[in-house]
Amino acid sequence: MSGSQDFQAVTETASSITKFQQNPYGPNPADYLSNVNNYQLIDSTLREGEQFANAFFDTEKKIEIAKALDDFGVDYIELTSPVASEQSRKDCEAICKLGLKAKILTHIRCHMDDARVAVETGVDGVDVVIGTSKFLRQYSHGKDMNYIAKSAIEVIEFVKSKGIEIRFSSEDSFRSDLVDLLNIYKTVDKIGVNRVGIADTVGCANPRQVYELVRTLKSVVSCDIECHFHNDTGCAIANAYTALEGGARLIDVAVLGIGERNGITPLGGLMARMIVAAPEYTKSKYKLHKIRDIENLVAEAVEVNIPFNNPITGFCAFTHKAGIHAKAILANPSTYEILNPNDFGLKRYIHFANRLTGWNAIKSRVDQLNLNLTDGQIKEVTAKIKKLGDIRPLNIDDVDSIIKDFHAEVSTPQLTALRRDNDDVNDINIQEQPNKKAKVE
Amino acid sequence: MSGSQDFQAVTETASSITKFQQNPYGPNPADYLSNVNNYQLIDSTLREGEQFANAFFDTEKKIEIAKALDDFGVDYIELTSPVASEQSRKDCEAICKLGLKAKILTHIRCHMDDARVAVETGVDGVDVVIGTSKFLRQYSHGKDMNYIAKSAIEVIEFVKSKGIEIRFSSEDSFRSDLVDLLNIYKTVDKIGVNRVGIADTVGCANPRQVYELVRTLKSVVSCDIECHFHNDTGCAIANAYTALEGGARLIDVAVLGIGERNGITPLGGLMARMIVAAPEYTKSKYKLHKIRDIENLVAEAVEVNIPFNNPITGFCAFTHKAGIHAKAILANPSTYEILNPNDFGLKRYIHFANRLTGWNAIKSRVDQLNLNLTDGQIKEVTAKIKKLGDIRPLNIDDVDSIIKDFHAEVSTPQLTALRRDNDDVNDINIQEQPNKKAKVE
Repeated sequence: MSGSQDFQAVTETASSITKFQQNPYGPNPADYLSNVNNYQLIDSTLREGEQFANAFFDTEKKIEIAKALDDFGVDYIELTSPVASEQSRKDCEAICKLGLKAKILTHIRCHMDDARVAVETGVDGVDVVIGTSKFLRQYSHGKDMNYIAKSAIEVIEFVKSKGIEIRFSSEDSFRSDLVDLLNIYKTVDKIGVNRVGIADTVGCANPRQVYELVRTLKSVVSCDIECHFHNDTGCAIANAYTALEGGARLIDVAVLGIGERNGITPLGGLMARMIVAAPEYTKSKYKLHKIRDIENLVAEAVEVNIPFNNPITGFCAFTHKAGIHAKAILANPSTYEILNPNDFGLKRYIHFANRLTGWNAIKSRVDQLNLNLTDGQIKEVTAKIKKLGDIRPLNIDDVDSIIKDFHAEVSTPQLTALRRDNDDVNDINIQEQPNKKAKVE
Repeated sequence: MSGSQDFQAVTETASSITKFQQNPYGPNPADYLSNVNNYQLIDSTLREGEQFANAFFDTEKKIEIAKALDDFGVDYIELTSPVASEQSRKDCEAICKLGLKAKILTHIRCHMDDARVAVETGVDGVDVVIGTSKFLRQYSHGKDMNYIAKSAIEVIEFVKSKGIEIRFSSEDSFRSDLVDLLNIYKTVDKIGVNRVGIADTVGCANPRQVYELVRTLKSVVSCDIECHFHNDTGCAIANAYTALEGGARLIDVAVLGIGERNGITPLGGLMARMIVAAPEYTKSKYKLHKIRDIENLVAEAVEVNIPFNNPITGFCAFTHKAGIHAKAILANPSTYEILNPNDFGLKRYIHFANRLTGWNAIKSRVDQLNLNLTDGQIKEVTAKIKKLGDIRPLNIDDVDSIIKDFHAEVSTPQLTALRRDNDDVNDINIQEQPNKKAKVE
């Protein structure tokens, strides 16, 4: 958005932010298995994200996205199955040849036909998935748990024999029978998979349910646990965080969360969560100031707008409006901000051009304009601004006009009597300045 | 979006959805204090939402929004403080006079000056708030806990004397000293407030932290607990749900979550979560099919787009793309859907015009076109569609052309030999049909 027209940028150095003596949002000491300070990211923009309604990535775009994710620092990049289409296989091979720091994975059905193709692409690992809920067993693949176990063992041993990583995941884990689940996970853990995966395929698990399943699974397997959360009921970020608290190590993300239906845990949103919980780890490992560029790259590729309410990059994520908020933010940003926009290469704004504004915000603007008014005078001019703000939306020009006009009055007393007749705020001539409404970018 | 161009609507009756024998997403039986099946909504679009950067509601728009919320069934409507501006007071009075079923609240600072104005507006209740964290005590109002308690008692007794409801809330509760918090809540509960409020003002609490605080508070007060969650780290829906599990009764929401910075718990998103956890209660109490209209009304008023990934109303919330998903959805929508679009007056779509499509999705389209192909033939034409989908984005016209062309071939064998020379899918003439890209509405 063209925020500069309606908002006032507040500059400050990072050092002016009060450091917490302790981090109340850090890992709970009771979670001795927590990986909040030791998590990894599997970005699935080029797999789950390809299943987003609007997604069509050609080879060039896939490579551009893969490089951006690698630069950001994701640990793994997951690609569409090479058996999905001929081009999918070629793209997988091309990305494997880029020599990225991130490990490259591809995601296949639990079937030897798929596995044989996958291991030839040059990937560092294979993510195997099979539906284990009664819904998927009945309506998708039609197989029973014994068949699933048998297929899993065959595929896992084959992939391992090729010397590459293997993950086994159930699908729709939260509607699967717990005993079935633990049985199959225990079996594949014994064979020696690198990771087992829990997937909330329908997007409906809740955080405490996630915590309990992860904790239970943690007591059954010795390998790492990976989690995949859809966002149908808006809990994908919270579920991911709670999974880490419970001992999961890896989280599947996609840029802007793109995926089937309304998608999965978004990379940027999870970073907002994690920088608060594990600031040192998160800031040292990932290039957070690249989030905006990566989101713009993917948003453009799939023809969507950055959601107005997106964590971090939503146009107003660091905009403060109510007078009481603005006052405190001007005194100390930590009062109403847990995220520091500087960490993401962004700025905060005080929205002072509206009827909810307060005199502290206006005082800050008066200072910026290099005008000299007493606190009493600032309160008086604030009242005028609020009065006009009651009538219609304001922009910065409106407010500046009112302030300058008022300043002219009080600093040139010989004219005051004359102007007093005319100082109803409603009469201020601002019609020539069209009201520039904030546009969402 | 103009989904009908690229997606195929799948019609079905509600009765075709398999009912769960039990609801794995329902309240946890261990949560004996849970209010998941007994929650209430306080909509704050006209208070918190007014603090959204783009919000300017004139009286007419406020009344329109209040009526829509009332029709939807929210229990309370919270309005901006009448001391924020002269027009805010007049609007508050006007909405109180509408005679809505929802109770009308206004939200004020913990100060007699504000309380005296608030009780004269005609509201059914007053929501009082004061900052209790060391940040807000130091940088916002500068008062100590004794002063806060004294002010609270004075204001609460005054409001109660007028025979209207009173809520006392701390602000920035999760960074406040726990003993201070419990002390002040216990004090106001003894005087007899209707509700105490917990507010995650900076938007950074996590679900298990919320559960613990609510459970602790529940053991200290006998009144209802209300919760208010900002969404800076993307956990506002999950935190609200977990608060209900812990025994909170009321959740503050705003349409599309609009509020300071990137906002609070969104009404629609919370409904997605609650219809899964408490389907009977949620469907009987709230007019869920009105969510889309209310979101459109507010989105237009504040000049934003519905986020592409919004729960329920995001353009692709009920769109299934990957072949394996489409196959199962066609057999039984519950396989990959926990939400039923019919509950919201919406439809699901199978996105079959892409390289990830599968033969079950194409078979469904062949049936819609009233053509007759064997399963083997459908698999053959699916391969052609996937091949073209590898080259560029497809739309429904593209796919229909391929299917019809293929059908013409196989049903007119005398021409097959002639056409076989020319049946490379790349040569199919679809250039006259411009590729209609999905537009996000």
